[in-house]
Amino acid sequence: MNTLLTNPALRLFGITYLILVLKMVAVGAYTSILRMRRGVYATPEDYNLLGIAAKAIDEDIERARRAHRNDLENILPFFGVGLLYALTDPSLFAARIYFIGYLLARILHSIFYIRQMQPHRTIAFVVAMTLMLIMLVATLIRLA
Amino acid sequence: MNTLLTNPALRLFGITYLILVLKMVAVGAYTSILRMRRGVYATPEDYNLLGIAAKAIDEDIERARRAHRNDLENILPFFGVGLLYALTDPSLFAARIYFIGYLLARILHSIFYIRQMQPHRTIAFVVAMTLMLIMLVATLIRLA
Amino acid sequence: MNTLLTNPALRLFGITYLILVLKMVAVGAYTSILRMRRGVYATPEDYNLLGIAAKAIDEDIERARRAHRNDLENILPFFGVGLLYALTDPSLFAARIYFIGYLLARILHSIFYIRQMQPHRTIAFVVAMTLMLIMLVATLIRLA
Repeated sequence: MNTLLTNPALRLFGITYLILVLKMVAVGAYTSILRMRRGVYATPEDYNLLGIAAKAIDEDIERARRAHRNDLENILPFFGVGLLYALTDPSLFAARIYFIGYLLARILHSIFYIRQMQPHRTIAFVVAMTLMLIMLVATLIRLA
Repeated sequence: MNTLLTNPALRLFGITYLILVLKMVAVGAYTSILRMRRGVYATPEDYNLLGIAAKAIDEDIERARRAHRNDLENILPFFGVGLLYALTDPSLFAARIYFIGYLLARILHSIFYIRQMQPHRTIAFVVAMTLMLIMLVATLIRLA
Repeated sequence: MNTLLTNPALRLFGITYLILVLKMVAVGAYTSILRMRRGVYATPEDYNLLGIAAKAIDEDIERARRAHRNDLENILPFFGVGLLYALTDPSLFAARIYFIGYLLARILHSIFYIRQMQPHRTIAFVVAMTLMLIMLVATLIRLA
């Protein structure tokens, strides 16, 4: 293992990020399962392949796609922010709170989004965003 | 601080990227503010929560969402490109031009997109894309 | 060059990722070329700039945009997964198979998507996803 990953904050960051990618993949898989179950696809060639008639847009599939896009807007930028933050050698106590808090808030965000639970979804979004911004500002201060 | 971040090109890259994430977050926040001000939301559960009737799509909100998606398509791939470029130990002079140029071009791109300024938006897009491709090719040549 | 990039698995990862970014840029450029050729744009200000009347949505342009979004959902998370995997000092033989396999599957995915080839597109998607998940789980086991 590269010596980078023996750094405990970086190691915790790596575990956090990989679990978040699994979570994103799960949202994508959920969308595919809904598409198959309801026979609603994105392209004419998908309908041709299956030999079925094209259907109207399905609200639950669109909701799962929005949850996925929200992940792209949040979890992907977090990769760079969390990696740089971990490289500033933060206190392990703070890193644990931020990374594990971010992980839990984003898992809950997906669940609340798909189950149409409001204002829970917005609260989970704001918690995760706040934790990312704290890490971002702390890192910027260290680097500047 | 990890020795990686004492490398001046990497440090400049880190600062550049973190400011770009702040910029992306600002575009997302602008979308949310527009949604609240105009009472136009993405999901039925948002309307239910607020107890207001669903409205038609708003053109300015859709424009802000396109600006955000354009960031996903450009700034997120830049993270990997810029990080690898900085790790090739480039001349600090070149790194400054590319990173600061990229940062400014992408900030202007968002402003021009939201203010509907064309061809300014397209010029800012092309400048940022060109700088990223220069870094990408320079890095590929060093690695290959 | 930073000593990180002298690690052969990291170097191969860097080359793989940079080629994938070029591929993503190519899908974006293809969308722009289609827009110009067919005179179909995303915003009113684009039509004003060109002095042409707004047109209805074009199915091929929407397909290229979906291929691009699929890249965001897959290639961008791969950056973090592949980087962390390479940092665990994997066997170079395994790293070669996973990285080169992923690269080829994602290039084919774009070609199959744009040429409307099914089930080829789905097969390429599943192959790339499987390779990423193998790297992800292998890395998680090393880190945990």
